[in-house]
Amino acid sequence: MSFEVKAEDLAGRVGKIKFKGGSLETPALLPVVNPRTREFPPEGLWQIGYRGLTTNAYLLWRFFREEAVEQGVHKLLNFQGFILTDSGAYQLLQYGDVEVSPLEIVDYQLKLKPDMAVILDVPTGWEASRRRAEWTVKETLKRAQEALNFLKDKRGNILWVGPVQGGKYVDLVAEAAREMGKLGFDAYALGSPTGIMEAYQFDLLTEMVLAAKKWLPAGKPFHLFGAGHPFMFSLAVALGCDTFDSAAYALYAKDGRYITEYGTVRLERLRYLACNCPACRRTTLEDLMELPRREREAFLMEHNLYVCLSEVERIKQSIVEGRLWEHLEVRARSHPALFQALKNLGKHWKTLEKTTPRWKPRGLFIFDEVSLSRPEVQRHREKVFRLLGNLQNRILLLLPEPEAKPYTQAEGYRKVSEILCELEMEGDVYVCFYNPVFGVTPASLADVYPLSQFEVAKPYGKTLLENMVEYLSNLLKESSFRAVIVHPDPSLLSPEQAGKLKATFTGWASDPWSSEALENLRKTLAQLKAFEGFTGL
Amino acid sequence: MSFEVKAEDLAGRVGKIKFKGGSLETPALLPVVNPRTREFPPEGLWQIGYRGLTTNAYLLWRFFREEAVEQGVHKLLNFQGFILTDSGAYQLLQYGDVEVSPLEIVDYQLKLKPDMAVILDVPTGWEASRRRAEWTVKETLKRAQEALNFLKDKRGNILWVGPVQGGKYVDLVAEAAREMGKLGFDAYALGSPTGIMEAYQFDLLTEMVLAAKKWLPAGKPFHLFGAGHPFMFSLAVALGCDTFDSAAYALYAKDGRYITEYGTVRLERLRYLACNCPACRRTTLEDLMELPRREREAFLMEHNLYVCLSEVERIKQSIVEGRLWEHLEVRARSHPALFQALKNLGKHWKTLEKTTPRWKPRGLFIFDEVSLSRPEVQRHREKVFRLLGNLQNRILLLLPEPEAKPYTQAEGYRKVSEILCELEMEGDVYVCFYNPVFGVTPASLADVYPLSQFEVAKPYGKTLLENMVEYLSNLLKESSFRAVIVHPDPSLLSPEQAGKLKATFTGWASDPWSSEALENLRKTLAQLKAFEGFTGL
Repeated sequence: MSFEVKAEDLAGRVGKIKFKGGSLETPALLPVVNPRTREFPPEGLWQIGYRGLTTNAYLLWRFFREEAVEQGVHKLLNFQGFILTDSGAYQLLQYGDVEVSPLEIVDYQLKLKPDMAVILDVPTGWEASRRRAEWTVKETLKRAQEALNFLKDKRGNILWVGPVQGGKYVDLVAEAAREMGKLGFDAYALGSPTGIMEAYQFDLLTEMVLAAKKWLPAGKPFHLFGAGHPFMFSLAVALGCDTFDSAAYALYAKDGRYITEYGTVRLERLRYLACNCPACRRTTLEDLMELPRREREAFLMEHNLYVCLSEVERIKQSIVEGRLWEHLEVRARSHPALFQALKNLGKHWKTLEKTTPRWKPRGLFIFDEVSLSRPEVQRHREKVFRLLGNLQNRILLLLPEPEAKPYTQAEGYRKVSEILCELEMEGDVYVCFYNPVFGVTPASLADVYPLSQFEVAKPYGKTLLENMVEYLSNLLKESSFRAVIVHPDPSLLSPEQAGKLKATFTGWASDPWSSEALENLRKTLAQLKAFEGFTGL
Repeated sequence: MSFEVKAEDLAGRVGKIKFKGGSLETPALLPVVNPRTREFPPEGLWQIGYRGLTTNAYLLWRFFREEAVEQGVHKLLNFQGFILTDSGAYQLLQYGDVEVSPLEIVDYQLKLKPDMAVILDVPTGWEASRRRAEWTVKETLKRAQEALNFLKDKRGNILWVGPVQGGKYVDLVAEAAREMGKLGFDAYALGSPTGIMEAYQFDLLTEMVLAAKKWLPAGKPFHLFGAGHPFMFSLAVALGCDTFDSAAYALYAKDGRYITEYGTVRLERLRYLACNCPACRRTTLEDLMELPRREREAFLMEHNLYVCLSEVERIKQSIVEGRLWEHLEVRARSHPALFQALKNLGKHWKTLEKTTPRWKPRGLFIFDEVSLSRPEVQRHREKVFRLLGNLQNRILLLLPEPEAKPYTQAEGYRKVSEILCELEMEGDVYVCFYNPVFGVTPASLADVYPLSQFEVAKPYGKTLLENMVEYLSNLLKESSFRAVIVHPDPSLLSPEQAGKLKATFTGWASDPWSSEALENLRKTLAQLKAFEGFTGL
């Protein structure tokens, strides 16, 4: 039993769980199979491409008891892949009580021989008071300790999951994670987010997952209970969820709903099967409408499962390509609540930054100010803050970004270099480019990834431009150059905005690279040199 | 031969072209088939689900001459669907000259018996000077007139297409369309946008298509030559393109590129087949990499064609559901250049508004200020401007939007109504709600679509809130109420922003619906009444 991380982006990762029956690539969706009804046959899941599933130990205990133990859960369900057994906590949350004790269900799972199993925790739920939430955290931790004591010498090739409770009380989630993390489970999970996801509180979900993950050992798989629509899978993965179970494919199907990239459509409202999955290719809408209810449900389940799987594959491809943020930008337009979560994610860039590669095979796509909060941008902005803060007593020359990338390849930059050379100031002047994406790009770093590897929507919006001036203004306040010279470009900087910068301006020209404008720049530098020579600075 | 529009959204439409061999539902992608190489067999296109294709009459003339005429283009290509023959104008643009005269190729097409055919126009291209562009417009119009004279008594069950030239000179495009529109073609087309699309100038493409469509008869199909990646199909459709040809599926395949929703991935970089199309389901990445080049190309073509087709189906479903704008929001995050085009589209809301339904089966998704430029929002804002402008001499009461929708169902509103009743002011006071989406929602319209049917990302961003105040400020300037009373909600209106509104404020409270805040509101109204009674207003 091991977990290996193969690629990372944001807090998301592609990994591999090795288990006795093989290996499971993560992130993995483990569709929920009700062992009694098996609406969708586990063999069918395998055929679609699922290599793992979730089933319920409590239901197995209630309805199959000895039979399930004799056969083992893999044989009972006729599924050779990875099986997670949940403990009945969901039933506990729904119905208030279950007929089995915490240790009984742990022992029962041990005998079922799944690949991952959950102790019987007490879900906090969505509507719990703070007091109740505190109790669920405490009680879950107590049960966790008892379960591990019980399992001491016989973990049985099973990854035992420690669920982190606390519900919407993020500080409780953090506390629960800190304690749970010390106990030495094989995997961890966020408990009871279902209500939060049903209420589309994806920004709260973000806070909960990040609070939990912060305190848990990074090398262990992290499970999200009860993920819903595939449009939120990429968010869950970006936060660091490695596995997630979902019954949405079946719940939607029973409700007559067909999953699309942006939500669901009731079958009656569907006019086109805009899907290439085998289920959709096999039929026509006309034929579908004529099917008896059960067959229509089976169709919907199959389609929904295909859509969910390809979204997981797409997310994995995004991680290896380093474009998980871009994928989030797309999915964020599936629903305003997801967009809100993406905006909220920016606050956590320092957490996401740690596992975001410094080099990626693709450039960054920058759309608007939301894109600026991505870790690659913030990482650079902070770096420049430190870098410029350490440059004592030099002259800072801020040039506007030229059209060409890297900026240092631009004709205009060559001319500025000549001017500096001619004035014998090249050693003393630190040249940077100001731009609304990275704020400031030092010429010496211009070809370092991603400073030349990005695409941005132009002309820049007002917010992006204002944001740049604010960054510049803060940067200049914190640094100790002996002079700051700004060569203005009216398409990036309005005279009004420029007023916020403590700097000398070379003169306003519609084209900052015209001979006239560059002559102004030369004069300003020459005057500065003469003045400093005169005053002996 | 007829064209019937079945559903509309923005300037996009689902329609049906009836032709001698059947009917073609639009928007339709007509993949380009090279009659010589037929890299992908036309039968295969049909099997995937394509009911139309594009082929090149000039190449047929050069390489099949009599044979093509004897068989007819349908039999020659073994395709029973809709066939568009292009005239060789692309070759003219690429190689500068073709060996056939304009009337010869018209006559040849007449004999080929396609379903839609194009006269031999002179493409303006992408790099033409204005003078050259003017000439291409003139020359194309001349040839168009000659072609129609030639075809006078023998259009041959073919939809003849009049291409609109002008290139990047939008005023020339408009002029060309006005003249071309008078000539009585069966369909129209935008000529030579390929270079513009290759340069990702989707905002310019928007201007060109809308300029052309403005002057062309709305009831005729409109074709876009040389559409590219499927991520731009929805933009093309939203602008009013009914058919488009594209060779991208084959060009990408030859270059080893696999189409994804956000762009393309080189096969070597692909780690996951995140696609459920029959081509992808039939193979594995490992097997793919072992295939000989030609078979790999065939795989890529097939996959690319499936992806393109499902995007078209998705667009049609979006139109019938009235969520084409939502679909554009998603696709706009495929590339910053598309996002730029979406931002630019807002300028044209009046054009798009005409064909955007007043009622839709789904609510609107509002993400940020870009979403505010959608026609449903702007239409309402303009309507309120007129409505309030016509209310002479009354009192305007502006309440903040409550949580509940429709706003008039909120408890707070009921209490305000009681206050008005108690003060006997209900006939004199016109109650509205201010909110960052619609600006102002009159209570009397609160349940009219879409004023209660929308989802918005909350908390509102700064830009949305500023935008609301600007709208309110303009609205108050233009209207002639005898008094304006604003009940402030600090989460929507900062005291600083409120300063921009010429109005009386009832008093600031963190909860505008608290008894205290409502008591303030009552007092303000009572004072106004007393004052007016006293002064005899």
